[in-house]
Order: sequence, then structure tokens, then C-alpha cells
Amino acid sequence: MDQVYKKLEMVGSSRNSVEEAIGNALERTGEAVRHMRWFEVAEIRGYIEDGKVSYYQVTLKVGFVVEQPG
Amino acid sequence: MDQVYKKLEMVGSSRNSVEEAIGNALERTGEAVRHMRWFEVAEIRGYIEDGKVSYYQVTLKVGFVVEQPG
Amino acid sequence: MDQVYKKLEMVGSSRNSVEEAIGNALERTGEAVRHMRWFEVAEIRGYIEDGKVSYYQVTLKVGFVVEQPG
Amino acid sequence: MDQVYKKLEMVGSSRNSVEEAIGNALERTGEAVRHMRWFEVAEIRGYIEDGKVSYYQVTLKVGFVVEQPG
Amino acid sequence: MDQVYKKLEMVGSSRNSVEEAIGNALERTGEAVRHMRWFEVAEIRGYIEDGKVSYYQVTLKVGFVVEQPG
Amino acid sequence: MDQVYKKLEMVGSSRNSVEEAIGNALERTGEAVRHMRWFEVAEIRGYIEDGKVSYYQVTLKVGFVVEQPG
Amino acid sequence: MDQVYKKLEMVGSSRNSVEEAIGNALERTGEAVRHMRWFEVAEIRGYIEDGKVSYYQVTLKVGFVVEQPG
Amino acid sequence: MDQVYKKLEMVGSSRNSVEEAIGNALERTGEAVRHMRWFEVAEIRGYIEDGKVSYYQVTLKVGFVVEQPG
Amino acid sequence: MDQVYKKLEMVGSSRNSVEEAIGNALERTGEAVRHMRWFEVAEIRGYIEDGKVSYYQVTLKVGFVVEQPG
Amino acid sequence: MDQVYKKLEMVGSSRNSVEEAIGNALERTGEAVRHMRWFEVAEIRGYIEDGKVSYYQVTLKVGFVVEQPG
Amino acid sequence: MDQVYKKLEMVGSSRNSVEEAIGNALERTGEAVRHMRWFEVAEIRGYIEDGKVSYYQVTLKVGFVVEQPG
Amino acid sequence: MDQVYKKLEMVGSSRNSVEEAIGNALERTGEAVRHMRWFEVAEIRGYIEDGKVSYYQVTLKVGFVVEQPG
Repeated sequence: MDQVYKKLEMVGSSRNSVEEAIGNALERTGEAVRHMRWFEVAEIRGYIEDGKVSYYQVTLKVGFVVEQPG
Repeated sequence: MDQVYKKLEMVGSSRNSVEEAIGNALERTGEAVRHMRWFEVAEIRGYIEDGKVSYYQVTLKVGFVVEQPG
Repeated sequence: MDQVYKKLEMVGSSRNSVEEAIGNALERTGEAVRHMRWFEVAEIRGYIEDGKVSYYQVTLKVGFVVEQPG
Repeated sequence: MDQVYKKLEMVGSSRNSVEEAIGNALERTGEAVRHMRWFEVAEIRGYIEDGKVSYYQVTLKVGFVVEQPG
Repeated sequence: MDQVYKKLEMVGSSRNSVEEAIGNALERTGEAVRHMRWFEVAEIRGYIEDGKVSYYQVTLKVGFVVEQPG
Repeated sequence: MDQVYKKLEMVGSSRNSVEEAIGNALERTGEAVRHMRWFEVAEIRGYIEDGKVSYYQVTLKVGFVVEQPG
Repeated sequence: MDQVYKKLEMVGSSRNSVEEAIGNALERTGEAVRHMRWFEVAEIRGYIEDGKVSYYQVTLKVGFVVEQPG
Repeated sequence: MDQVYKKLEMVGSSRNSVEEAIGNALERTGEAVRHMRWFEVAEIRGYIEDGKVSYYQVTLKVGFVVEQPG
Repeated sequence: MDQVYKKLEMVGSSRNSVEEAIGNALERTGEAVRHMRWFEVAEIRGYIEDGKVSYYQVTLKVGFVVEQPG
Repeated sequence: MDQVYKKLEMVGSSRNSVEEAIGNALERTGEAVRHMRWFEVAEIRGYIEDGKVSYYQVTLKVGFVVEQPG
Repeated sequence: MDQVYKKLEMVGSSRNSVEEAIGNALERTGEAVRHMRWFEVAEIRGYIEDGKVSYYQVTLKVGFVVEQPG
Repeated sequence: MDQVYKKLEMVGSSRNSVEEAIGNALERTGEAVRHMRWFEVAEIRGYIEDGKVSYYQVTLKVGFVVEQPG
């Protein structure tokens, strides 16, 4: 069968690491959890306070299965 | 009048051709058919089984008319 | 707190200027106005009639806050 | 019928604005005005005199209809 | 001998396939047929009607031999 | 288990279609057939004779499983 | 004689237009005004308040003459 | 007020992680700590010794507030 | 003496972190360990199960010394 | 006065050097010599015979002044 | 017949010129000399000692004919 | 120890060659000579007079060691 996906662009943030920022974005996509399949990192950036990283900000493209109607 | 569009990123697949993978993605966008206007191919890839193409996978950006409220 | 955003791709148009095309896209995103935070210009193009710019067309990525449930 | 276009790369300049630089480029493409259809902005740059913008310089790709012979 | 080429950007369209859109562009370059040597696909996009591909539109860079004068 | 892949860049050609050029590249990778998993299209180009496409040339990145020793 | 330039990356902002944001960046480069020669726009983005553009933010590369010692 | 920023390109390294390499670059920018606002990761690479990562090397663009004179 | 290198593209994966995925790729390049010199991260992506990162997948270009014959 | 330019894409070749390939392309643009202003190198490649460079091939964008009519 | 190529990424270096660095990379590809067909320059960089270029380093993609078995 | 670098963007020019333009840029970076480590070519362009190259212009990113305070 010919599977179809959609991709949404999300930005997650974390005070601790790139990996935690990715996890935080996935937790709040607003889509059914069982439809999420993969992600691609599009951008890594972050904010600085007092000369240190305040938080990391990672932009992801997240791939979701589009269910067949009926 | 100043028209506004949104663009969604879809991935279609097909065992036969790039063109069929595009068509399959368009069939299941979950948007009103009459709003779809154009697509742009962002990526062509595919999966391999026994040394042959198992299916093509084409990533599209699809442009939709955003209707003016009321 | 770890903020999450989503980014939507919109295309606005205007007969007058790049800035007005951006404003027109923002006006019709279909999202709650209070969630919109920033935009990034991805592409500037336009259509021509009688050798003059008929309208500008600006593709934007628009960033929205994703509210925490509950 | 299957339409064919060609795209030419033009650079327009203006002391006042990006939009005027685009218009100036279109005015002097050397092609029949009725064949011009669309443009895409490839680059925005400019020159500086006395610490101020002296003129904007906008590089465009301009799309023209290629007429069918006879 | 030191060969020189020029490259023109063409857009071909077809209701049926990417390959036919390429062929249609080549047929109407307006250059001497014997000078054409190669093409590079720069962009694949298309238009949609009633939820199906209406036509494919392929942007090509076409390489032509520049003949030596005299 | 933590899977590792390598990616090789191949160029396939065909007189008939983009899809056939992809298939031709896969047939002669010189790797064990059972290790091939996926491909990504990096470039589509071609050669021209007498104003028509002589053959398509498609550059692929092909992903192979790297087997664990022992 | 062989001229040498350096390029600095600046971000200017303005509530009104892309052009004014460029001008604001140039005004505060911290370099001798007579050394500035050209700019290249690298990115156009902006911030949103109440569903409208709050300010434009334009990233420029600015070229300066490097004076010969002595 | 119209804020202006400059961006500097820095490369930080660390034997342990991408995040630590970012932190190390920020510590030695040679700018007043209170002016640093954000960073963007431009490149991640590293060196290898005895088949293991010897150190990570992360290229950042760091954004600084340009203070208004006076 | 004029050193020559070759670069291979590898994909490593890990359930835990980007850094571990890099290390896993290096461990299985199939080249003599003493020839490996540096890596460049080309892509970071991953797979998702039950709404969480199942594993990270990092694409690297790995640089190897090409030994001089004899 | 607002100057307009067009840019043509040319490919020059030479058995000896990148610089000579550039010079060879400029010599045969088919445009009035007095209109040529600048070039930008878009691609450097070449052909190989018997394990040595047979000739360099350099793709240029060449900028020409578009003269004002009359 | 449908020719197939593979592309390898090599880095050559030279104290004297970009061209010599290319030649040095080709000399040590480890492939049969008669299979090499073309190269594409992917990157030019170099190292500095005492404020002068110590050596140029050129990254190439080199195309090889893949011979048909038997 | 964890080394930190900064990268500056310089443009050198020369009437004779790409290599000489690089050397000219390095000579006038305005930094301590002993801190310069490597360069990356970002752009090669040039100016034309009387149909010949008037001078080459090469944009470099130059890497400098940032010394540890104290």
C-alpha cells in the first residue's frame, strides 16, 4: 500500500541539551502520538544569559503518518 | 484582491513512478480539494529491496488558497 | 519553562510592497492572534502585467507558541 | 497546450527602495513587454556612501513566455 | 581546443510526466538544434486542478556550444 | 542494536526515464544486494542529441547496511 | 594596487520597513564611515505583536575597505 | 527603539560534547558578557584519534547587542 | 609533502545521544583505525516510537589519510 | 541614474588553469566587449584523461550593462 | 548502452596552487587510472603559517566508470 | 585544552590569480600574524575591463586562535 506522510515544523527548547530540546518538541506536537514516525533537525540555536547558554532551541521537521480514511 | 496561501509539506510514495507518488500525496492532504493550487518537489528518495527500487518517496510542498472569512 | 513553537509556511501578496504582502499573510493565518511570535522571509517573487509588477508575493515561515495543555 | 518559458537574470538598482529597483529592472529587459510573466528575487544588496545606502541593487530571475512558432 | 558553452534557463510543462516536460522545453529553446549539448534539472513543480496534477513544470538549465567565429 | 550505514554516490543513466536511470545505477553498485536499503536523488541531468533527450543521468546517494563483524 | 576588504555581519531593525532596518544597521557599525562600501542582505525576518509586524529585522553583511598601513 | 546587533563567528571545542564546545566558545568571545544575546550553530565537526572522537568542534554565529553611543 | 585524503559518508545511530551515534559510526567504518582523521556532521535525524525519540541517526563525512604507496 | 544589468551564464574551458578557463569564456560571450562588467564563479569542474586533468571547466555568471535606449 | 558511474570524495593538497592540489588528489585515488572521467570542486581551503598560505587543500568529487561485469 | 577560534571574512584582490588574491587578503587582516591558522574560500568573482579579467576578487573566511587570557 502507498503510505502518505505529512511533515510539521516544530521548535523545542531546553536548558540542558540538544537532545532534551528535541524531546520537548515531540511531546507537544498536538498530533496523535501513534502517528509520529521520524524527525529531521533543521536548525540548532540558543539564547545566552550572563555569558552562558540560557537554553537550546532546536527546529525539527516531524513526519506523521496520514491515515487512510475509512 | 490580495490572495493568501498556506503551504503544507507532504510525502507521497508509489511502487511505480515519481509522478504516481506525487499524485498519491495530493489525494490525501486532508484539505478541501478545491483549495489546492500548486506543488513544489522538495526531495526524491526511495527504498530498495533485493537490489531494486521497492518504492519511490517524493516530498512535496503543496500550496492551498486560504479563504477569506465570511 | 521549556517553550515549544510550531512554524507554518504562508504566502502573502500585495500590489504595493513587500512589507504589505507580509502583513496580509499574517492577517489570515487562521491561528489565534495572541500565539504569533515571529516570521522569517523564505522567498520574494511576484507577477508582471504590461511590463510592471502586478503584485508581490512573499513566502513566510510564521512561528506560533504551542500552549501547554491544562 | 504545453507552455514553455525562459528565465533571464537581471539586476535593477534604485536610490529609494527594493521595490523600485525591481521595477527598474523590468523596464529594461529588452524583451517584448507582453511576454513577461513573473519574477523571483535572487539577491538584495546595495552600495554605501557617507555611511548611508547609496542605492539598492536587486537581482531578479524574470520569466517570459516563449511563443510557439507560426 | 578550448570549448565555450552558454547556459539558458528554460521551463517546460506537460500534463503527463516530468520527462515530457523536459522534452517540451528543449523543443522550443529558439537556438540552433545542433548546438544543444546537455541539461540540468533545477526545479520540479506543478499545478493542481480538482485535487490532481494538472501539469508538471520543470525548470532546466540547457547548455549550448558557442561556435567560434570564422 | 545500533545500526550503522554507509552511503555511496552513484550515477545511473537511461535513454527512457528518470526511474530507469535510478534502477540502472542500483544494478551495478558492486555491493552485496542484500545490504542496500535506500537511495536519495541528488541531481537529475541529461544529454541532448538532435534537439531531443539522448539519455537521462541521475546521481544517487545509496545507503548500505554495514554488517557487524563476527 | 590590490584592494582588501573585510565583511562584518550586522542586524538592523525597524518598525516601518526593510529599507529602514538596513539604514539603522549601517548607522551603528562602529567603523569609520568613510570605509563602508557595500552590503548584502543575508536574512529578512521580524517580530509580531497582536497579529501585526512589530518590527522588521534584517541581517546584512557589510563590506569595509581595509586601509593600507602607513 | 531600533536595536542593532552584530554577529561574530566563533569555533569552540570540547572532548566531551557538542553542548560543552558551545559553552567553551561563548566563554572566550572577547566581548562584554552583558552584550551576548543568542547563538546559531553553523557547523559541527570533530577530530579523531585511535578510532574515537578526540574532540568536537562547533562553529557558532554569536549575536551581540551594539550599544547606542552616548 | 602533499597529503591526500578520502572522505566516506557514514550513518551512525544511538538510542541515547547525538555524540554516541557519531562514536558508533566511527567504530565500524571498515577502514584502518590509524587512517581516520576528522569528521563533519552532515545531517541529524531520528526515529520516534510512542511519542519519544527511539534513536538518533547522524550522517557523517569521515576523512581518512590515503597512504602513499611503497 | 539607475543602472540595469543582465547576467549570462557561460562555461569556459582550458587545459592549463582555472584563470585561463575564465578568460576563454569571456572572450566568446557574443556581447559587446564594452558592456561586460564583472563575473562570479558558479562551479569549477574538469575532465580527466590517463589519470591527469585533461581540462578545467569553469561556469561563470557574467554581468553586462544594459544600455538605455535612445 | 546505459553507463554507470560512482563518485568518490578526495582531498588533495599543494603548497603552490589550487590546480596542483587537484592533480595531487587524482594521482592517489586508488582506482584504476583508466576509469577516471571527471571531477567537481566541492571546497577550496588551506592552512596558514607565518601569515602566508602554507598549503591549499581542495575537496573534489571524482567520477569513475563502473565496468560491466563479464 | 579546549582551543577556541574566531573566523573573520576578508576579500582579497589580485590582477593575476586566485592564489595571489588569497595571499593579499591574508597580508592585511589586522590580526597578529601568529594567530592565523586556516582559510576557507567562500566566493570567487572578479571585474572585467575591455573584455578581459581586470582583477580577481576572492572572499575568504580566515580562522584565528583566540588566546586564553592570562
